[in-house]
Amino acid sequence: MKILILGGDGYLGWPTAMDLSARGHEVTVADNYLRRKMCLEENVAPLYPVPPLPERVKLWQKLSGYTIRHEVGDLREWEFISSVMASSQPECIVHYAEQPSAPYSMLNRRAAMLTLQNNLTVTANVIFAVREFCPQTHIVKLGTMGEYGTPNIDIEEGWLEIEHKGRRDRFLYPRAAGSLYHTTKIQDTDLIWFYVRTWKLRVTDLMQGPVYGVFTPENRQEHRLLPFLNYDELFGTVLNRFVVQAAAGYPLTVYGEGGQTRGYLNLLDTLQCVRLAIDTPPSAGELRVMNQFTQTFSVRELAEQVANAASALDLKVEIRSVPNPRMESESHYYHPAHAAFDALGLRPHLLTDEVLMEMLVLARNHQDDIDASRFMGKNARW
Amino acid sequence: MKILILGGDGYLGWPTAMDLSARGHEVTVADNYLRRKMCLEENVAPLYPVPPLPERVKLWQKLSGYTIRHEVGDLREWEFISSVMASSQPECIVHYAEQPSAPYSMLNRRAAMLTLQNNLTVTANVIFAVREFCPQTHIVKLGTMGEYGTPNIDIEEGWLEIEHKGRRDRFLYPRAAGSLYHTTKIQDTDLIWFYVRTWKLRVTDLMQGPVYGVFTPENRQEHRLLPFLNYDELFGTVLNRFVVQAAAGYPLTVYGEGGQTRGYLNLLDTLQCVRLAIDTPPSAGELRVMNQFTQTFSVRELAEQVANAASALDLKVEIRSVPNPRMESESHYYHPAHAAFDALGLRPHLLTDEVLMEMLVLARNHQDDIDASRFMGKNARW
Repeated sequence: MKILILGGDGYLGWPTAMDLSARGHEVTVADNYLRRKMCLEENVAPLYPVPPLPERVKLWQKLSGYTIRHEVGDLREWEFISSVMASSQPECIVHYAEQPSAPYSMLNRRAAMLTLQNNLTVTANVIFAVREFCPQTHIVKLGTMGEYGTPNIDIEEGWLEIEHKGRRDRFLYPRAAGSLYHTTKIQDTDLIWFYVRTWKLRVTDLMQGPVYGVFTPENRQEHRLLPFLNYDELFGTVLNRFVVQAAAGYPLTVYGEGGQTRGYLNLLDTLQCVRLAIDTPPSAGELRVMNQFTQTFSVRELAEQVANAASALDLKVEIRSVPNPRMESESHYYHPAHAAFDALGLRPHLLTDEVLMEMLVLARNHQDDIDASRFMGKNARW
Repeated sequence: MKILILGGDGYLGWPTAMDLSARGHEVTVADNYLRRKMCLEENVAPLYPVPPLPERVKLWQKLSGYTIRHEVGDLREWEFISSVMASSQPECIVHYAEQPSAPYSMLNRRAAMLTLQNNLTVTANVIFAVREFCPQTHIVKLGTMGEYGTPNIDIEEGWLEIEHKGRRDRFLYPRAAGSLYHTTKIQDTDLIWFYVRTWKLRVTDLMQGPVYGVFTPENRQEHRLLPFLNYDELFGTVLNRFVVQAAAGYPLTVYGEGGQTRGYLNLLDTLQCVRLAIDTPPSAGELRVMNQFTQTFSVRELAEQVANAASALDLKVEIRSVPNPRMESESHYYHPAHAAFDALGLRPHLLTDEVLMEMLVLARNHQDDIDASRFMGKNARW
């Protein structure tokens, strides 16, 4: 299948590109290196250098024999996105091309406006481009479990049947996010749902939880093909940060009580879910929403599991509570459904000590490159 | 009170400015003439010429003795909005500064992107400016009843208490709009609700139905102070269009069966509602949502009432069904609440034959200026 991956240089985009390429799909990736530019501007960096797309594509070709096409440019620009569509003729589009960091979106007005304008303009351009070039093409869009927030009722998958004063209707599940970044994902959903109804598009919206891990079968033999592993407060997801903190002998910093509970998944399961979504496209006019996570943990539970795995490697780890810089509940009900991917046959990779130890070893191998000032350096408060 | 009206040149903005000025408030209006520019580009025009802001402000001063300050510029630009905030020091901001037309937002990709980017960027800038310059200032934001769409359950005012699997929570009422324009209003709501929670802003969101009428006590003696009266398919609201069609001897064009039911209100009640909202600001951290309409009508009922009033002026009027260019239901449940403004003491101006006849006489006085090709000329289809 011809597959176009938008944001194909990112933490999830590049592993997805290799995963689909390894299965024989004709993969094109497009990216404007926004993530790299933001890291540069904010003076944070991944644990190890990550080569730019032309080099990654060459390494991948040498390793696998497969070719991934790459296009560098800004999907906010119609000229660029339409040229990418014309040259790649996608049967499926995986849309990761958004500013992905909640703390970054809360840093200041400039960062907030970039997040709002980038995320919504790219999503709108994807919709308009599909309408113009390939109206049957399946869009696989990355949403986030964070769109739902932490409601006091069970979280269903995208939709909610509501009975009110003796009448019934089915609605988008009500959303209330905890950061501007997550709010732009809600706004994406609004936009997509409108055009799905109006233009009969085919869209899968993946409500994903925080992802951890970097290893996939495609990069184990060639570490230059690993995705970004950020450990700073802006671009590091929580479990990845804990692993690097543990390797550096830095305390695992838990916000407040650490009771914040979310649904997590291994990078391998992001790849598996995206494959499952691609293989079962929705009908024209259908917005299919699936919750994409495999296990729920509180932040404190995650920290304890990392500390436990680290002790097996003789790393001494302290868990330290720091004042919560965010407006969020540290003790809340959390009961999200995840039946859709189970029904499609997802076989979860659970969070085991072995998974953590492989990451801890990687981080320890780069111990000298860790800049501990980045753990707490760029603390967005809200 | 110092009041800043964003979009103060518009159909609602200018009458609001005079209304508040006449009551002794210190009013500043800001506008970039977006509505005028779009009309120019799309080759449509109001029924009569409307002088630009400097001239309107002078006419108003001569008539009333009151001064309205005006600032012409683009609120998408931080430099402009921050200079307006600094010079006007508002205690209340009335935010009308959006691309206001559903059909325009559906014309083509360029118009859609302008609507999306303009509406969300301005709303974000208003939020950021209030946060920076005057965090206690009350924002009165114009939303739309169209955010709710036409659900099969009663429409409450902004919020819905939901019971699900034996647990309860209160959410934003689920929204599903019928055009991109209306969708951007939903996205505004998402953005505002996030920052109200996070930064403890004070916001009133007015979910307004289609407005009709042009006359207010401030402009009856000086018709050069009348607001825009568009009768084209892009910028003319339905009742205003019917009145001009009737005056021109053109059939009243009803889409399909004309069963589309909405909540309407007289321009005088927009002014009254905005005053009531200003006089009763919400608490810090409260997003107050009020449904702003006084009567519900189907499109066919509106057409019949116009035809009836027109016959009293010896105007012969035909009602003609034309194929519906829109993706909308022509027969649906519609039961929206409007208790909040009743509780604040709203005294509605109902749609009477007298109200229609005054408008019909105005339109007949400009009969020779009516360009009938505009009634159906720019038909956005979706």
